[in-house]
Amino acid sequence: MVKVVVSGALGRMGTNIGRIVDEAADMELVGGIDIQEGTLFGTEVVLAERMDAFLKEKKPDVLIDFTVAAAAVENIKVAAENNVALIVGTTGFSPEQRATIASAVEGTVPAVISSNFSVGVNIFWKLVREAARELGDYDVEVTEAHHRYKKDAPSGTAKTILDILDQELGGREKVYGRVGETERKGEIGVHAIRGGDIVGDHSVLFAGNFECIEVSHRAYDRAVFAQGAVRAARWVVGREPRIYGMQDVLGL
Amino acid sequence: MVKVVVSGALGRMGTNIGRIVDEAADMELVGGIDIQEGTLFGTEVVLAERMDAFLKEKKPDVLIDFTVAAAAVENIKVAAENNVALIVGTTGFSPEQRATIASAVEGTVPAVISSNFSVGVNIFWKLVREAARELGDYDVEVTEAHHRYKKDAPSGTAKTILDILDQELGGREKVYGRVGETERKGEIGVHAIRGGDIVGDHSVLFAGNFECIEVSHRAYDRAVFAQGAVRAARWVVGREPRIYGMQDVLGL
Amino acid sequence: MVKVVVSGALGRMGTNIGRIVDEAADMELVGGIDIQEGTLFGTEVVLAERMDAFLKEKKPDVLIDFTVAAAAVENIKVAAENNVALIVGTTGFSPEQRATIASAVEGTVPAVISSNFSVGVNIFWKLVREAARELGDYDVEVTEAHHRYKKDAPSGTAKTILDILDQELGGREKVYGRVGETERKGEIGVHAIRGGDIVGDHSVLFAGNFECIEVSHRAYDRAVFAQGAVRAARWVVGREPRIYGMQDVLGL
Amino acid sequence: MVKVVVSGALGRMGTNIGRIVDEAADMELVGGIDIQEGTLFGTEVVLAERMDAFLKEKKPDVLIDFTVAAAAVENIKVAAENNVALIVGTTGFSPEQRATIASAVEGTVPAVISSNFSVGVNIFWKLVREAARELGDYDVEVTEAHHRYKKDAPSGTAKTILDILDQELGGREKVYGRVGETERKGEIGVHAIRGGDIVGDHSVLFAGNFECIEVSHRAYDRAVFAQGAVRAARWVVGREPRIYGMQDVLGL
Repeated sequence: MVKVVVSGALGRMGTNIGRIVDEAADMELVGGIDIQEGTLFGTEVVLAERMDAFLKEKKPDVLIDFTVAAAAVENIKVAAENNVALIVGTTGFSPEQRATIASAVEGTVPAVISSNFSVGVNIFWKLVREAARELGDYDVEVTEAHHRYKKDAPSGTAKTILDILDQELGGREKVYGRVGETERKGEIGVHAIRGGDIVGDHSVLFAGNFECIEVSHRAYDRAVFAQGAVRAARWVVGREPRIYGMQDVLGL
Repeated sequence: MVKVVVSGALGRMGTNIGRIVDEAADMELVGGIDIQEGTLFGTEVVLAERMDAFLKEKKPDVLIDFTVAAAAVENIKVAAENNVALIVGTTGFSPEQRATIASAVEGTVPAVISSNFSVGVNIFWKLVREAARELGDYDVEVTEAHHRYKKDAPSGTAKTILDILDQELGGREKVYGRVGETERKGEIGVHAIRGGDIVGDHSVLFAGNFECIEVSHRAYDRAVFAQGAVRAARWVVGREPRIYGMQDVLGL
Repeated sequence: MVKVVVSGALGRMGTNIGRIVDEAADMELVGGIDIQEGTLFGTEVVLAERMDAFLKEKKPDVLIDFTVAAAAVENIKVAAENNVALIVGTTGFSPEQRATIASAVEGTVPAVISSNFSVGVNIFWKLVREAARELGDYDVEVTEAHHRYKKDAPSGTAKTILDILDQELGGREKVYGRVGETERKGEIGVHAIRGGDIVGDHSVLFAGNFECIEVSHRAYDRAVFAQGAVRAARWVVGREPRIYGMQDVLGL
Repeated sequence: MVKVVVSGALGRMGTNIGRIVDEAADMELVGGIDIQEGTLFGTEVVLAERMDAFLKEKKPDVLIDFTVAAAAVENIKVAAENNVALIVGTTGFSPEQRATIASAVEGTVPAVISSNFSVGVNIFWKLVREAARELGDYDVEVTEAHHRYKKDAPSGTAKTILDILDQELGGREKVYGRVGETERKGEIGVHAIRGGDIVGDHSVLFAGNFECIEVSHRAYDRAVFAQGAVRAARWVVGREPRIYGMQDVLGL
């Protein structure tokens, strides 16, 4: 039975994660942490400032953290001191914060840190890499679609796609839209569609002579990220004390 | 039996049109015009400078012209003087050239002039208009994809889509790509994918609350433009002497 | 302020509808009906057998019913007797049940009855009709995709698509899959994809000579059906006492 | 300079291949074989019965054969006797014919034999295999679309997809359509869309919890098969004398 505490327990991701843990036969939800008190599927949610005592009392195996960068760094330090393994989906760490996390974790507890815990997205990235390796002489265009409220473009997941393409195809220029006189010169076109409530679509088109290959991923619900985080929690317990990526969890 | 002469007879479009006319039971291919001599499915292709005599000899019902703007203006004048109806798929006319064409044609011969003779594209445009009328409170994004050699973006067909959306939705801003911090503010996103040999895809996405509607068109072969032109040729004979669009041919 | 009672209040659709009504500034959720007692966003949910007294006490303007056929018929009768307008998303009525509903409602209260309250699907149906009208000589194929648990194929929404195509194209044969030696003979192919959690995709492909037109709808969340029902509730109050369809609400 | 003879020279594939060879700087088209005489891009096309003498005279490096099974077996035997390497895109061989081909070729000349010479399809198959390996717990649905005249379903390329899925996923049941009461039970759904002139689309959908991954291939022109065959011809010269697949050519 894997005992889990969730930080950011009262937020949307925290609630999603809490529900999945609560319903899992092999896991036990033992409480939550947040910036206000409350309950999470019948367990107690305590203030972040009380976290150390709470972990000592509940003795969880894993802390799952989807908060913000500054809070996460503190949470990670306290969890590591209490020998609690970590699943970190929080993003936006500065290089200094990354260094702080690394020194807190390495040699102390195992931690899975990833910007995207969706199992499907991680496998999708692998397929994109495989395709890029084989299709180096095809034209490549990346298209992503998200809801109308998304504040950045392209998406973080699309940026990871571009990183993968750079690694496999050697740093082609990126073009983020085309208008007027244009001429394709070996660049990668990147297209960000925004509208409605689209959860998250990503597609990589490889266009060659008279044929196209496309690899695409569609998320229907943000719950996919919660499910991946819980899968990582199940995996991380008992691992060597160092930082892992989601691809390690999935054996990709 | 509709007698047809093709100008630009030795080019790709001319050959496509010639083949379709030659195979049509109700049409007769009586010759071609081009800047060099040759043959088109067993008929004679004469130099453009000999066009007037050729039309007087062959007495065609229709001239189908897919050439370049300057040549087309001359061809149209000569055809009109010989009382030959016109199908004009040539594009890129200046306002002056358009005026010259209008005065040559109006009251003299019927002429169908269109930037896209594909039957499907014309119906697609109508569906886009219909959708825009009903979905005024949805976010709209236009995506088109063409081969790597296309020199302009967005495509002419996409520009017509934008004109239709402007008419129905009242002039929303157009955004031709998104990168960095972005915030959707009621604009229409326009995305031009370029790669491989893609003949021509167009898609209009209407994204609303938890649902999307998409209307799309795909061309598999440039022959669709030739087929539409021949359909227009069949239609134009005996019409009132004025300028028509492809939507008139199709009764849209 | 439109006062609303929800029947099937404790089910998934009831909860979705309750939430939307509760959050609407111009509506008031006054209670729910179900086969067990409970609460719905702070309001009382009473047993169906107590419905008559409950409606007399709460005096709602509208009852929204997403239950099962037999229960819905009773609910509709009681609501009509209490002069409460109706929104009915329940499906599977027998012809006799439909007759009972009609005689309870016609001349007594206004009622919107539809198998799909999604605004987008209703507009999508209209676009499909429009496309079929224009593309009568194209081959037509209908594809829908739903989650792995769906128990029937094709979906009710796809059946409505087929009804529309029959009306416009004159009753072509339907083929629900192809294997082995096959030859297309003017039929409509109907394809039901089942997998994962797909909420509901529908697509109608019109394939012609060298070009295709596709009209498609995708639902991202079952909330679209709830939203449409609430929109219908807002519309139905004060209408002539008869049965309406969702297309009347939308003015399609 | 690779010298090439084409059999089935006057057919559609022969013409496509002849054109590509004729235009290749590193290849020389030295003639064709068919069941009637003619010319292929300025070279002589002789009757199949004269093939032996023709090969002795022209001394080609490679024979490219897209004919029918019985003819191909003869062509292969004659080519092997003349020490001419082979590219065979002909399909429909019986097991006996396959054995005859193997004994003619093995130890004598190198031969690439494949049911699909498209580079993209071969890479697509590899991606499908990769995806199936990683996504074993997802629901899988295969959809292919072809023109209205196609006489069999599913396509040969789709059958190869199903073979690959069987190898990776262990022989799931196949369902070739769904209608009426249905319940997904771990089968693979296979959908064959037929309409218009669609050249060939193939798509494999992996549908999981709240997310889908799709890998797809689209052919825009049958020329892709000719191009792949010519690429194989360039590769095969000088190889060990045995039978290869297209995946060997591509190093997949």
